[in-house]
Amino acid sequence: MVVGAILHVNGNSTVRFSCRSNLDRSRSQLPAMVKVKAPESYWASLHADVEAHLRQAIPMKEPLVVFEPMHHLVFAAPRTAVPALCVAACEVVGGRRDQAMAAASALMLMQAATHTHENLPLTDRPKPRPMTDQVYDPNIELLTGDGIVPFGFEILAKSGQAGQSNSGAILRVIIEISRAMGSQGVIDGQYCKVLGTQSDGEDSCHEESKKNAIEKNGGRLHACGAACGAMLGGGSEEEIERLRRYGFYVGMIQGMLQLVETKDKGLMEQVEDLRNLALKELQAFDSSKIEPISCFINV
Amino acid sequence: MVVGAILHVNGNSTVRFSCRSNLDRSRSQLPAMVKVKAPESYWASLHADVEAHLRQAIPMKEPLVVFEPMHHLVFAAPRTAVPALCVAACEVVGGRRDQAMAAASALMLMQAATHTHENLPLTDRPKPRPMTDQVYDPNIELLTGDGIVPFGFEILAKSGQAGQSNSGAILRVIIEISRAMGSQGVIDGQYCKVLGTQSDGEDSCHEESKKNAIEKNGGRLHACGAACGAMLGGGSEEEIERLRRYGFYVGMIQGMLQLVETKDKGLMEQVEDLRNLALKELQAFDSSKIEPISCFINV
Repeated sequence: MVVGAILHVNGNSTVRFSCRSNLDRSRSQLPAMVKVKAPESYWASLHADVEAHLRQAIPMKEPLVVFEPMHHLVFAAPRTAVPALCVAACEVVGGRRDQAMAAASALMLMQAATHTHENLPLTDRPKPRPMTDQVYDPNIELLTGDGIVPFGFEILAKSGQAGQSNSGAILRVIIEISRAMGSQGVIDGQYCKVLGTQSDGEDSCHEESKKNAIEKNGGRLHACGAACGAMLGGGSEEEIERLRRYGFYVGMIQGMLQLVETKDKGLMEQVEDLRNLALKELQAFDSSKIEPISCFINV
Repeated sequence: MVVGAILHVNGNSTVRFSCRSNLDRSRSQLPAMVKVKAPESYWASLHADVEAHLRQAIPMKEPLVVFEPMHHLVFAAPRTAVPALCVAACEVVGGRRDQAMAAASALMLMQAATHTHENLPLTDRPKPRPMTDQVYDPNIELLTGDGIVPFGFEILAKSGQAGQSNSGAILRVIIEISRAMGSQGVIDGQYCKVLGTQSDGEDSCHEESKKNAIEKNGGRLHACGAACGAMLGGGSEEEIERLRRYGFYVGMIQGMLQLVETKDKGLMEQVEDLRNLALKELQAFDSSKIEPISCFINV
């Protein structure tokens, strides 16, 4: 299936990028210098690299009672674009893939911890979700989530120790991820969700919490991933902020398409507007590098 | 009340330190160069400084639904010696108190998060503890704990950004704290506690989990606090390792006195042995500086 997006370049000309297969057509419309790579395989390869990095980082070692659930819960959590976007942003600014690998792994770990805790059966959760993926006792899942988060920060801090020269960037990334995952980011989104649930079906509150979840779990978290990748790849401040905005639009699009049930014309127009804003941010980068990362808005 | 400890110096001579008041007597037994400071007020002043630092770091700002529970749960959690020991270790190696303040605050935050999650009423916790200090709904307490941990790492990382020169030490401290709080530290101790509870009263398992809790929550966490303080105060590798061992003994003593119910002669002899080992580690430091920190073993 071909999923295309319109790139509004300089507000006038348009370029159509093919995102899934049909490379011949997209090749004929790109400058000769562009090394064409199937974007879906680019995204898949980023995912695969982050997972491989994490599998090495979480060995099945003693105490098995600790590491076996951690291993399972990290790789069973739903995938998001955040870790891959982090690595892609690093590559767009000219960085090497391995420079962003620790941050991408940390982001994947933190999201797995959040997902694990979201599914805990607490006594004040009146309508427990279907526990299809609940393999361990709640006590163990609580503790595993609690163990995963510091482990993510450890991986990040260790990556700054090896070379030393990037310790400033690593500290900055730790601050970014702490904020995006913490009380003013994902956790705030979850608070709103809890309060939305407690309001027992009041539509306005439900809508408000959904909007907040899209912004915090979607927009801001993807923005954080992209900004962190750009920082670690050595991007300029302008590049970092452009990629932060690009990530924000990516996350908003993905959140809207996943969480809004009625995919009416109005929603799709909003999505299209966000795509255009996202692509506008990419215009400042080397044209040979923007094709792979532009795939994230073609979901 | 006077609580004294015997300092075995060079294996022969002994010096008695008064730890709580009765300063006149201790003064007469210390070299004239020793600037005597009531140790209990030293410890109290360290605690007060860390709390003041944290109160500034956690302002009562919007969203109040997030920050009000965070504020409450951080300051309602039981106090341990870990944050104060971190600052004391920094001062022993010649560092300034403010150099260790972010790490001490992060340690206090992480312990509050652990305490909050330990008291969550999960559906598979058969015997819920008395919920005397449970002010918020479990959902909110879960999320607050989840928000506190990244906030601790944020405070730490920010302290490395301000000056930049200590970014290497900060990264090292982040690794230390991640490990001590994570799956091979406090969380492992909690796993053992959960498994001990599930074994439904088997004494050997109960004893094993208690031993593990004393080592992970007591020994290793205090060791981490002291080592981090020494790193941030610019201590040498030898000083860091000495203070790590000192912290370990402090934590083991405190854990044994708190968790072991039968304070028989055997236990008190073990405690005394640990005190002697702890004081031996302090001998390498400037005699004018060891009095305040030696207070931690006189509990």
